[in-house]
Amino acid sequence: MKIICRKSELQQGVNTVLKAVPSKTTMPILECILIDTTEGIIKLTANDMELGIETVINGDVFDKGKIALDAKLFSEIVRKLPDSEVTIETDDHYKALIRCEKAKFNISGKSGEDFAYLPDIERSNPVTISQFSMKEIIRQTIFSIADNDSNKLMTGELFEISGNQMKVTSLDGHRISIRKIELKDSYTPIKVVVPGKTLSEVSKILSGGVDDPLKIYFTDRHIVFEFDQTTVVSRLIEGEYFRISQMLSNDYETKITINKKELQDCIERASLFVKEGEKKPIVIHIGDSALELKISSAIGSMDEDIDIDKEGKDLTIGFNPKFILDALRVIDNETIDIYLVNPKAPCFIRDADESYIYLILPVNINAGAY
Amino acid sequence: MKIICRKSELQQGVNTVLKAVPSKTTMPILECILIDTTEGIIKLTANDMELGIETVINGDVFDKGKIALDAKLFSEIVRKLPDSEVTIETDDHYKALIRCEKAKFNISGKSGEDFAYLPDIERSNPVTISQFSMKEIIRQTIFSIADNDSNKLMTGELFEISGNQMKVTSLDGHRISIRKIELKDSYTPIKVVVPGKTLSEVSKILSGGVDDPLKIYFTDRHIVFEFDQTTVVSRLIEGEYFRISQMLSNDYETKITINKKELQDCIERASLFVKEGEKKPIVIHIGDSALELKISSAIGSMDEDIDIDKEGKDLTIGFNPKFILDALRVIDNETIDIYLVNPKAPCFIRDADESYIYLILPVNINAGAY
Repeated sequence: MKIICRKSELQQGVNTVLKAVPSKTTMPILECILIDTTEGIIKLTANDMELGIETVINGDVFDKGKIALDAKLFSEIVRKLPDSEVTIETDDHYKALIRCEKAKFNISGKSGEDFAYLPDIERSNPVTISQFSMKEIIRQTIFSIADNDSNKLMTGELFEISGNQMKVTSLDGHRISIRKIELKDSYTPIKVVVPGKTLSEVSKILSGGVDDPLKIYFTDRHIVFEFDQTTVVSRLIEGEYFRISQMLSNDYETKITINKKELQDCIERASLFVKEGEKKPIVIHIGDSALELKISSAIGSMDEDIDIDKEGKDLTIGFNPKFILDALRVIDNETIDIYLVNPKAPCFIRDADESYIYLILPVNINAGAY
Repeated sequence: MKIICRKSELQQGVNTVLKAVPSKTTMPILECILIDTTEGIIKLTANDMELGIETVINGDVFDKGKIALDAKLFSEIVRKLPDSEVTIETDDHYKALIRCEKAKFNISGKSGEDFAYLPDIERSNPVTISQFSMKEIIRQTIFSIADNDSNKLMTGELFEISGNQMKVTSLDGHRISIRKIELKDSYTPIKVVVPGKTLSEVSKILSGGVDDPLKIYFTDRHIVFEFDQTTVVSRLIEGEYFRISQMLSNDYETKITINKKELQDCIERASLFVKEGEKKPIVIHIGDSALELKISSAIGSMDEDIDIDKEGKDLTIGFNPKFILDALRVIDNETIDIYLVNPKAPCFIRDADESYIYLILPVNINAGAY
């Protein structure tokens, strides 16, 4: 195999597929990036068997072939090359010679034949969405997936498409995040659970441009993201997702409107009194025109008032500050509405047209103590 | 005690003295920042018994007194306060109430009387230098102190003042760094060893302005840095520093002039083939108009040519790439001169007027193998 391409092209391609290289694996071939030029184009691939990424880079193929190169070493070499033309040549013993200006590197590769190719998936009827929207949807929901595998379904996000609406849901047993977005076209109904890891890696390599399109294909067992020169294939999580509709009530006893940044800053200050791993709640008392936030721990105590607009009853309720902060950090609106029922019922942060809904379970507090 | 000051003033002051708060100590009082207003000004102090920092901040004292507050908690609270006026009040039980806009914090402090004050040092005949120069000198020498305590003197830097010249030396047994600078005035000779930790912390809090003066006082056992509203007091390292004059020969057999960035980039690429903790040397062969750099390890191999101007004999010599890189990274010149004698003698990187000298010991290589 012999190819010549720009260092910048190669680096961008390598960084893209690097997201699918597993950090730990018992199969050394998976720690490699495959360079495949058998079709006359330069295709880079990485695959951890759950998630695979393939990208095509610009450059010239002088000799067709393929080789698998250690991803870590190869990516570091590429990163440190001068910004110039790079030549990669391989011999029959899977030795690769990488040349750039006056620098010459010799590294050992593996046979490309041993590489686990991405599954061949029939692609039809893609859902089209802007890369910007996809990146936003992931950012605004990914924080509330569960981070351990005790319930596999909780480590993924539910994607539901119905008509021209896409709805994405994540939950971890303490909270639920829902984002809805209108699509340009209408589609037949789809309901799949996509691994959280796939979504965070995709989000990192999406350009995020409003005018850059992303095509998503769904099959029974896979999701495929197609954008720019890149294809991402991921397995889906199998099983029936949680039924949450009965939890999503629109009834409330108390509604407040509050400046998002003021509330966020205040809870961040209160978090100073919660040590890592501790489960100290913040206590929120909602009065007529102000919300009073209190926290008290072994380290010290804090309280602060924030002006609010209120409808309905007064209320005292406790929360894990992290769960509220996670939601506030991804909401872009200046003011938000919070809906509450009683100290034991979930609270909702949502906008008028329900483009986002954050449900957060309260923490039991001994109201008498405050 | 009661004080009112701006959050920004308080934060700057706290961040300054925080550099002298020990990360681990058996004396809880040392984990505190002392606020002392007994003289009618707001003075913050931290002291780890080797290094002490004191700074005065602008603000109003309404009630004189002092209190010691946990440095970590206090600094985090200050950092998260709104950018507004802060009131700190303490009671007889060393409880502190911190107020800022509508936020109120209660934390427990300790008696200021228990705090270990900075030693009272008679200050006369300061050496005056710009903060910029001091910061540069530290940056250009600090990397070659030894990082373990097996030889205490190697963890410090030798400061020598003689006439209007200040010379700073550091060494770790593999290399020596020397920086010389001309002072505006002339001074009586001084020769002390300053702890490396003191210098790195001082360097972090110096503004680094060319027109911002720094006064340095020396005594038999202490060095005092005075700048802006801040005083840093540090113990010196006692003992006789290493005699290095006989190592600093100006004789050479080979002199090369080379582009600094080209050499640095090339060695950085070569470093990819050295695994953490491994002692693989780079081999440099100096020929008539080019330097050839080679490295070969279990991972692979690399070689590269760089154009040079050469005087004297050809030479093949081995180095630990890290030691050369450390020196190259702090040299600001576009081209540098390197002086060599033979494969077993130290190499020198120095400029014409010897404002900097970097001596690096070579690594033994089996020259026949290359």
